[in-house]
Amino acid sequence: MSKQNLKPPRGTRDLYPEDQRFREWLFGHFREVAARFAFEEVDAPIVERASLFMRKAGEEIVDQLYHFELHGRHLALRPEMTPSIARMVMARAGGLRMPLRWFTVTQNWRYERMTRGRKREHYQWNMDIYGEPSVTAEAELIAAVTTLVDRVGLERDHVKIRVNSRSLLEASLRAGVLRDRPEVFEPLCVVIDKIEKIGADKVTDMLVDPAGAVQLDAASARDVVAMLEVKNLEDAVAAAPADSSAGSDLLRLWSLLSAYGIEDRVVFDASVVRGLAYYTGIVFEAFDTRGALRSICGGGRYDRLTETLGGPSIPAAGFGFGDVVIAELLADMNKLPELQHPVDDVVFAFDEAQRAAAIDVATRLRGAGHRVELVLGTPKLKRVITDADRDGVDTLWLVGPDEVERGVVKQRRLATGEESELPLDSFAVEPRG
Amino acid sequence: MSKQNLKPPRGTRDLYPEDQRFREWLFGHFREVAARFAFEEVDAPIVERASLFMRKAGEEIVDQLYHFELHGRHLALRPEMTPSIARMVMARAGGLRMPLRWFTVTQNWRYERMTRGRKREHYQWNMDIYGEPSVTAEAELIAAVTTLVDRVGLERDHVKIRVNSRSLLEASLRAGVLRDRPEVFEPLCVVIDKIEKIGADKVTDMLVDPAGAVQLDAASARDVVAMLEVKNLEDAVAAAPADSSAGSDLLRLWSLLSAYGIEDRVVFDASVVRGLAYYTGIVFEAFDTRGALRSICGGGRYDRLTETLGGPSIPAAGFGFGDVVIAELLADMNKLPELQHPVDDVVFAFDEAQRAAAIDVATRLRGAGHRVELVLGTPKLKRVITDADRDGVDTLWLVGPDEVERGVVKQRRLATGEESELPLDSFAVEPRG
Repeated sequence: MSKQNLKPPRGTRDLYPEDQRFREWLFGHFREVAARFAFEEVDAPIVERASLFMRKAGEEIVDQLYHFELHGRHLALRPEMTPSIARMVMARAGGLRMPLRWFTVTQNWRYERMTRGRKREHYQWNMDIYGEPSVTAEAELIAAVTTLVDRVGLERDHVKIRVNSRSLLEASLRAGVLRDRPEVFEPLCVVIDKIEKIGADKVTDMLVDPAGAVQLDAASARDVVAMLEVKNLEDAVAAAPADSSAGSDLLRLWSLLSAYGIEDRVVFDASVVRGLAYYTGIVFEAFDTRGALRSICGGGRYDRLTETLGGPSIPAAGFGFGDVVIAELLADMNKLPELQHPVDDVVFAFDEAQRAAAIDVATRLRGAGHRVELVLGTPKLKRVITDADRDGVDTLWLVGPDEVERGVVKQRRLATGEESELPLDSFAVEPRG
Repeated sequence: MSKQNLKPPRGTRDLYPEDQRFREWLFGHFREVAARFAFEEVDAPIVERASLFMRKAGEEIVDQLYHFELHGRHLALRPEMTPSIARMVMARAGGLRMPLRWFTVTQNWRYERMTRGRKREHYQWNMDIYGEPSVTAEAELIAAVTTLVDRVGLERDHVKIRVNSRSLLEASLRAGVLRDRPEVFEPLCVVIDKIEKIGADKVTDMLVDPAGAVQLDAASARDVVAMLEVKNLEDAVAAAPADSSAGSDLLRLWSLLSAYGIEDRVVFDASVVRGLAYYTGIVFEAFDTRGALRSICGGGRYDRLTETLGGPSIPAAGFGFGDVVIAELLADMNKLPELQHPVDDVVFAFDEAQRAAAIDVATRLRGAGHRVELVLGTPKLKRVITDADRDGVDTLWLVGPDEVERGVVKQRRLATGEESELPLDSFAVEPRG
């Protein structure tokens, strides 16, 4: 095998013990936050029918689909969880108690060009609420995001959440520049989602591009971009058509977030639309307040997705929170946890004649819940002690010929160096775990 | 979306909350057993270069590979973890402290014909030890399997472990029928692995098949099959060539298993070879003692895998333990756990005017570690109580107009029906978790 072939495929990761400890630490926080909000975990296959992900709005996520023909079927590695969740809800529609609160921690795939911090596979924590039409759902979701940010040790001002309403934007545009062409709203959102990355001028160019999906005239494009620059909630609400409920929903959301005590952690931003075509209402994204990283999570309301997929209309809202950007932010902020492989005891037979006695000691410790490394070969005692010290092991159990002959085992507490001899047959084990 | 398209692709599973709870319960046991044996978790990509899995021994697992060309690369969904683990070890060979003990809990894919209990994707718990040449490694692995069986609530006689030595078989065959053709040993193992499923006669036919990979004469094939029928360790050891260490390894393994207190849980069975080409020494499989199900786990020593892949020679042993057969066995034995969605508190605002107060109550409970369902809409109180009762919720918090006016919240303990009123601003929360 060539050196190149020892690596995982480009854009994917091997997780050695230290990487996996971090992942499990992070996933543990995802799961704990979800539990505190009484969400239930679900899962779906990583390989789905490709058609589940095919949409017509020019989204990056669809362009980047890992899809292939296999045994006569057109399959895809899921690029995101939302369509699979929608499929599962639809498959049991009527039999599920609403509102339902589901979460997932799953791997997703996107075939994208590799730049710093971009992977072709990443994990994502998703939380979704189905069956609740009011913004109480979005408020719970945003509160869960802030709870996670706090739990992983970031400071309150490291991360904020930008909030907007696609329906507010849609109402304004339908009353204005999109009056005769409401169908271009979704591709328009896909374009304006790029504004932070590529800037207002390039977005304007794309909106007027005669070969593009939107094809506005120049004045209309400038109007749209001007609309995105509003950073004040009251101004945006005042500018919206009076018959739209989007403004009152936004104001209500703000008062709910205030009840959660997190009003200071959200900012209104009319340019946030998220790059997925299916969002219909409130949209939000968490961001690094230094502006150095891509968005940490993104979500919103997607009330028409189940209908688009051919099912009943079910109101829904959710977010996806990746594992890559949060790890980068923790690293930048010097907040990565120090995680060691937890081993309570090391049991060492000096040579093979004491192997059975050592196995017996290890088995009894494990039976009491201890995490026990049984030394398998017969290395030098000095090496065993050095390794155990470095690993932060509590107790070393030494089973030598002399000990076995006298029917004892030597116990050494590594923190203090204190040694004692215990009867091999009947030493007391402190239970753990 | 058609009704058919609401289902996951054939051979895959959607995991609704009740399914996922079982999976997390089982994975929790996998991880806890691994922790007690001081194994460290690792992971690798689910999509690998297809070449990593290509071998020439006619194994089912290779025939059933999910592989495809994508962006000019030949990729595959991993059918098993062992080659990826070997790749990871090789990539850091020299930098890893040996012996290393790694485990994984990962999804694997095989494109196979669908019969009862067969899936195209399944999860597998793998435990592997690299760098330990002696059977102390196999003994630890077998002890871990029995520990898992005990932890999930099966009885000692529900599962036993068949053990054999491929090197014992190989030594006997090389001294006999394979004297001039040692290279057919691996394909021969792939054939005889099927003996329990298809019977001795069909195995004999396959061994003599002039179009097959082995092509023995009829007498040799009968000799091989007779050799597989030995069920007594001493007879097998006695029949092996005197210069083979395989017999003494087997005897040593038995004495180690006796030190673990699990000698009664293993049986010698000369027909066990496992269907993977890379095994070289001890092989074992756990089985349902009723004989109703496929094997529960399988493993063994594979000292030549890293060399086969072009790397240094590193002794290794491990097993894979799937999630499907153990679940079937637990169901058959009526040992499936009853797992409920754990919710400590339900907080209910009678109407929107009390929403902020209810959010405050929920946020404080969550801050103390409680798992709290905040009722999002304003259903009837009766329905809220019925749902909370069914879910086994501890405490219902009622926030009505009358309570808010008086600055209190009503707390109802659902087990006893006991109600009390607490000050809304300053009620004490019992910490949890």
